[in-house]
Amino acid sequence: MTRLTLALDAMGGDHAPYSAVKGAVQAVRASDTGVILVGAEPDIRAELGRQGVSGDPASAGLSIEHTDVVIGMGDAPSSVLRSKKDASVAVCARLVKEGRAAGFVSAGNTGAAMAAAVGNLGRIEGVHRPAIAAYLPQADGGFSILLDVGANVDSPPDWLQQFAVMGAEYAKFLFGVDRPRVGILSTGEERGKGNEMTKAAFELLESTPVNFIGNVEGRDLFSGRADVIVCDGFVGNIALKCAESLAETMFRLMKRGLMKNMMRKIGALLSRGAFKEIQKVADYSEYGGCPLLGVNGVAIICHGRSNAKAFANALGVARRYAEQNVVGTTRARILELQGTAAVPPRRS
Amino acid sequence: MTRLTLALDAMGGDHAPYSAVKGAVQAVRASDTGVILVGAEPDIRAELGRQGVSGDPASAGLSIEHTDVVIGMGDAPSSVLRSKKDASVAVCARLVKEGRAAGFVSAGNTGAAMAAAVGNLGRIEGVHRPAIAAYLPQADGGFSILLDVGANVDSPPDWLQQFAVMGAEYAKFLFGVDRPRVGILSTGEERGKGNEMTKAAFELLESTPVNFIGNVEGRDLFSGRADVIVCDGFVGNIALKCAESLAETMFRLMKRGLMKNMMRKIGALLSRGAFKEIQKVADYSEYGGCPLLGVNGVAIICHGRSNAKAFANALGVARRYAEQNVVGTTRARILELQGTAAVPPRRS
Repeated sequence: MTRLTLALDAMGGDHAPYSAVKGAVQAVRASDTGVILVGAEPDIRAELGRQGVSGDPASAGLSIEHTDVVIGMGDAPSSVLRSKKDASVAVCARLVKEGRAAGFVSAGNTGAAMAAAVGNLGRIEGVHRPAIAAYLPQADGGFSILLDVGANVDSPPDWLQQFAVMGAEYAKFLFGVDRPRVGILSTGEERGKGNEMTKAAFELLESTPVNFIGNVEGRDLFSGRADVIVCDGFVGNIALKCAESLAETMFRLMKRGLMKNMMRKIGALLSRGAFKEIQKVADYSEYGGCPLLGVNGVAIICHGRSNAKAFANALGVARRYAEQNVVGTTRARILELQGTAAVPPRRS
Repeated sequence: MTRLTLALDAMGGDHAPYSAVKGAVQAVRASDTGVILVGAEPDIRAELGRQGVSGDPASAGLSIEHTDVVIGMGDAPSSVLRSKKDASVAVCARLVKEGRAAGFVSAGNTGAAMAAAVGNLGRIEGVHRPAIAAYLPQADGGFSILLDVGANVDSPPDWLQQFAVMGAEYAKFLFGVDRPRVGILSTGEERGKGNEMTKAAFELLESTPVNFIGNVEGRDLFSGRADVIVCDGFVGNIALKCAESLAETMFRLMKRGLMKNMMRKIGALLSRGAFKEIQKVADYSEYGGCPLLGVNGVAIICHGRSNAKAFANALGVARRYAEQNVVGTTRARILELQGTAAVPPRRS
């Protein structure tokens, strides 16, 4: 079969399997992509029926790989490599490993997806740690990416250097720019500002073949100054969660305030277009998902709250990410790095 | 004179000396406090005239300490101890040192205020590093404090332990609670989550005489879970600036969206009460300022954008902070700590 085929974790996300299956149906209708739906076959079949796919799903470009092993809240991410080897996300990763799928998409537990991806596909040669990137909406309407927001705490400077290279390759793919601007998240713009780790990373990035623009501050996370912002996973996690919860808190307070009396309610109705616009600014479902950077294969994770459109877009990202061989170009940049690193990596 | 007297840096803040002088006039009219206005005498006199204080300012409880040395953007904070010893904020700190004022208030450069305070007043006995706290508005309408948001990067665990103790003493004073809830900013609630430093600080705080509630995540910065959130100065700076800039960006985008057409403009007019309310949530001018915690004396810093009300409130905070001897109780807690610390401080 010449058609590119992707594996989709049908059991991942808040509305599984509804949103995932609906998104897969949209994706196969919109492009010549095949999707293997991984999860509980009866549930998936029932959902396919509701989405107007009855009879043999193969005629629609879909197939089902059955498993009913579920990752619970109490399971460690690493269980996908041990007691829960047949969890849907682990089956997805194996389908990629076996060459039956060109990549996989999951909106399930991110830690489990990372464990399944690394355990089955491995890391790109030379990569210390795979990283997770997040989209940050920018005041000018675009997006930037922040990495690592995964679990790489206490990152030494040479991990940050690799995050910069992997983030830049991803930004080239994502934004279609040749020289994405790469900054280090720090406490001041000057090279002397920051902690020991960012100062050492600053020196390292000056001799790294990326478009390094220096330090960016917390206030620049939404200012459009950088396309790629690198940081230790501890700082990235806190900045991202801080931003998400502040935005949610503000929307909630606003909504409550606008419902207080009839005059305000009418006002809110007249100006609701503005509210929809601002909520759309933070809506990254267009991008649909984010690859696990540094994994030796196409592994795209989605937000747990992903709707069908987000899943369809994530499948589109996976397809293009595979077709454009971003894993291959990243591998080349990482190899190149080992040749050009003039400053020896320091550990703080 | 029995009246409590405070020194005010009249040259600090975005609208100097207007807001500072106006705030001082309000403060002396509202309570039996004396204020020494430190800065360029002609400018201060002119401003006093505009505020209805003509003739001898002493009759209004005000006096002027002249200096026209100004800290510029290019000056290092430490210049207040060397080439710019007569900068207004340094004169303020000396007035406290000499016993002519019970404390000082400044809305100028925070680094310079810290340098002037530490250089002239010293640290509380046993304190490794003074810390700067910031107010975080909470979804339930209250505030929490986050520290350190100053320059204490690469803080070892025992610095965090002291931040917790100093923050708790301040929270008792500020919120009038007996056992403020103290958390560590980390990447997960469980004790094993975080980086090496927060994990060691977690152990240390378990045996520290504060009401330690464990780790709090980035999403809990505005949830009302903790009264005092401690972190390394690098992380605190980034979280605070991230939050400030996101809130500003959201307000700006909202405003722009509401001005797009006539219908939205009318809607915005009808519902403007809600917007005023939400902007008020983030308005910490009621608290007016924040003490430099760990400094051996009363040194209150204000936001550069402080208006007259914020200055008046900051002078009120300084007065009560001095009267209630929070520096003394903090000293006692820090001494106590040296006796009770069961777990030896680890350095990461």
